[in-house]
Amino acid sequence: MPQSKSSIHSFRQIFFLYIGFIIVFACLYLLPVSKTGDLSVIDSLFLSTSALSVTGLSTIDIGAELTRVGQSILMVEMQLGGIGVVVLISYLFLMMDKRITVSSMLLLSKDQNQYKLSSITSLALSVLIIASIVETICFIILFGEIRPRYDNYGDAVFVTAFHSVASFTNSGFDLFGDSLVSFKHNNLFLITTAITIFLGSLGYPTMMEYILSFRKRKTLFTRINIRMHLLLLFAGTVLYLLFESTNVLRELNLWDKLTNAFFFSATSRNGGLTTLDVSSLSITTVLCLMFLMFIGGASSSTGGGIRLTTAAVLLAKIGSVAKSRKEVVIMRKTITQDTIDKSFMIFFTFITLFFISTILLTIWQPQDLEPIMFEVLSALTNTGLSFGITNELAIPSKTILILLMIIGRIGIFSFIYTIFKVEKAKARYLKEDLAVG
Amino acid sequence: MPQSKSSIHSFRQIFFLYIGFIIVFACLYLLPVSKTGDLSVIDSLFLSTSALSVTGLSTIDIGAELTRVGQSILMVEMQLGGIGVVVLISYLFLMMDKRITVSSMLLLSKDQNQYKLSSITSLALSVLIIASIVETICFIILFGEIRPRYDNYGDAVFVTAFHSVASFTNSGFDLFGDSLVSFKHNNLFLITTAITIFLGSLGYPTMMEYILSFRKRKTLFTRINIRMHLLLLFAGTVLYLLFESTNVLRELNLWDKLTNAFFFSATSRNGGLTTLDVSSLSITTVLCLMFLMFIGGASSSTGGGIRLTTAAVLLAKIGSVAKSRKEVVIMRKTITQDTIDKSFMIFFTFITLFFISTILLTIWQPQDLEPIMFEVLSALTNTGLSFGITNELAIPSKTILILLMIIGRIGIFSFIYTIFKVEKAKARYLKEDLAVG
Ligand SMILES: [K+]
Ligand SMILES: [K+]
Repeated sequence: MPQSKSSIHSFRQIFFLYIGFIIVFACLYLLPVSKTGDLSVIDSLFLSTSALSVTGLSTIDIGAELTRVGQSILMVEMQLGGIGVVVLISYLFLMMDKRITVSSMLLLSKDQNQYKLSSITSLALSVLIIASIVETICFIILFGEIRPRYDNYGDAVFVTAFHSVASFTNSGFDLFGDSLVSFKHNNLFLITTAITIFLGSLGYPTMMEYILSFRKRKTLFTRINIRMHLLLLFAGTVLYLLFESTNVLRELNLWDKLTNAFFFSATSRNGGLTTLDVSSLSITTVLCLMFLMFIGGASSSTGGGIRLTTAAVLLAKIGSVAKSRKEVVIMRKTITQDTIDKSFMIFFTFITLFFISTILLTIWQPQDLEPIMFEVLSALTNTGLSFGITNELAIPSKTILILLMIIGRIGIFSFIYTIFKVEKAKARYLKEDLAVG
Repeated sequence: MPQSKSSIHSFRQIFFLYIGFIIVFACLYLLPVSKTGDLSVIDSLFLSTSALSVTGLSTIDIGAELTRVGQSILMVEMQLGGIGVVVLISYLFLMMDKRITVSSMLLLSKDQNQYKLSSITSLALSVLIIASIVETICFIILFGEIRPRYDNYGDAVFVTAFHSVASFTNSGFDLFGDSLVSFKHNNLFLITTAITIFLGSLGYPTMMEYILSFRKRKTLFTRINIRMHLLLLFAGTVLYLLFESTNVLRELNLWDKLTNAFFFSATSRNGGLTTLDVSSLSITTVLCLMFLMFIGGASSSTGGGIRLTTAAVLLAKIGSVAKSRKEVVIMRKTITQDTIDKSFMIFFTFITLFFISTILLTIWQPQDLEPIMFEVLSALTNTGLSFGITNELAIPSKTILILLMIIGRIGIFSFIYTIFKVEKAKARYLKEDLAVG
């Protein structure tokens, strides 16, 4: 886990770059031209963080309290967040020479001293191109569905564009006022949006692999991601049908039940748009939803959570212990101890942050445990779903959620390395086994 | 982590031995002489598991629904659970040759082929002697406090004995009907009980080390346990004072506030007796309590949870990552990768079991999330505190809690090894790093 000095240095650079962007955009929302009424500094910081980390939680009603200019800035920030994060994370992988993922995606030359800068540029470009293509297709399909809702042609164009960007970047913001509740019966709309969200959370490395080498055998990273994605998408749909058919899906016909359950499963990791009122879901469903949010999307994607490969490694580790095997094997590949170690660390820090933040929020929030826990997890996993308590949060609670959104997006390690000093290697101590558990 | 065939075999033996004991005692509670009215099979199994695993949750009112004979059987089972578990776990450590902990405790000869059987006998004996001494002292101090409450001398003796055993074994059962709520203002009673609980959760290895070699430098195991114990005891007291001074501790004077907070902190890991109504605590306090329950007591003690050393190793690992150090160091000792691996596995399986069980319980239970989560954690960590929903549980819920109490007590590994087949070592695959998180 401990990194070289240079990669820790780049972790820090990225962290400060990220914070810089948040502050700049927060200032833009505070301009008179962006807002329709009053906007406090903490709310603009919250909005800016939520957009750059493509979370989608908001303490204000962005449809009513931002002008079209403000909403346009938001759209730019989401797009930047969605692309920027992928580029940043890929850059980190390059710095750490994790060539498996990144070079196979970019088909880069193996000359390590030369490729770093040029690869970042070409990566950023290719990511931007993919994003534009997917968003344009989404726009074309959905414009006809959104057009009838607006008298003004320009409004319809803007709202459709906003929705396309929000879907592909998994940012989960909406201008409809009640997320996608009014599209509950529009299957074309839901399935198009679900696929757009899915492509975003698939991750660019995987998409690039499919585009550039469709017939070739995929990397382990891509095969795990695809399998986990489809498995969880299916599991989510089944669970939601099972637990909600007689509850919030009660009044829908069979076909609508299916599309809405499927859509909700796709948006759980971590799209954030919803046709269902989260606070009306049964406790069982909320817990299943939280489980999906926690696992999240692929690494180097716009999805959040501990990420699919992390979950796969943890599962494989459990399997190997149960079978009393020394090696952890996924699809006939042995996973390195370093990767296993890192996966456990991610799991541990996620749980710890989730728990400590929930405790802190309960101090300032009068709500029940369930909505508070949910809100914290939604911020940490960059999901953006909510019981609707976001605008009731106290300032310390908002501050904590801002931190969680940042940590959830750029990774716990960049955060840790920024805060703590890096020590020189110490003298080795005697090794000792210790009775645990 | 993967163990040799012989130690896996002994894991299984212990598991089946444990289940055997639970069934035998469950049958004893079903005898007409043990019960005052009807007792269902599931309730007697629940009671028997709760007693042998020294948890203290009960679906029946043991003061009213068991006869003195039944209560005596319960007392024997708690004592057996409290001692037996320690002996069993120590036996496992012996099988796995973790001599650091066990041999230093028993001052055994190093001859590995000879010592195993005799050491178990001497261990069991010394554990029984320590238990008897502590429980007798507790009895002597508390008899005067309990005597005035009963007209009958015999009743007072029985109840005091029962309470002493329940305290030292950390089993948390009580015959007072409302746990220790009526002793809220009896500081002598509370402090004596707290110390008795504390000694139980300290663990026999640590107690033996202090008895046998008071002035010598202690083992790493003991030093970690003592430090963590005192730290958490202090932290718990402060947190409870902080969050409950104006809530459930409101009507107490300053001194009573202190004793009750201290007592509750001692009983959180994992005594299970309480002077406070858990369901009246603020959400923040409940979460802090759950944190303490989760961490629990020492390995080879009557406490539960992930255990103190596990928590210390996880913390040290985080520290080493933050400082970008390769080695995990506690008190100038490097912790082996195997120990770190095992600690993460324990943490991961605890969280997973907790989460999955909570989801399952929400299917059958109409209660809110908070009491259900709490009940599940209380069973898994063998704490025995409850929001008072234990007697409202459906049969599937009771079955899940029974499994959790067993797993929490004898360890997840014995459970896993019993369920899964052990495979032969497989051919090695190519190693591969994988992008996680
Ligand atoms: K989102
Ligand atoms: K207990």
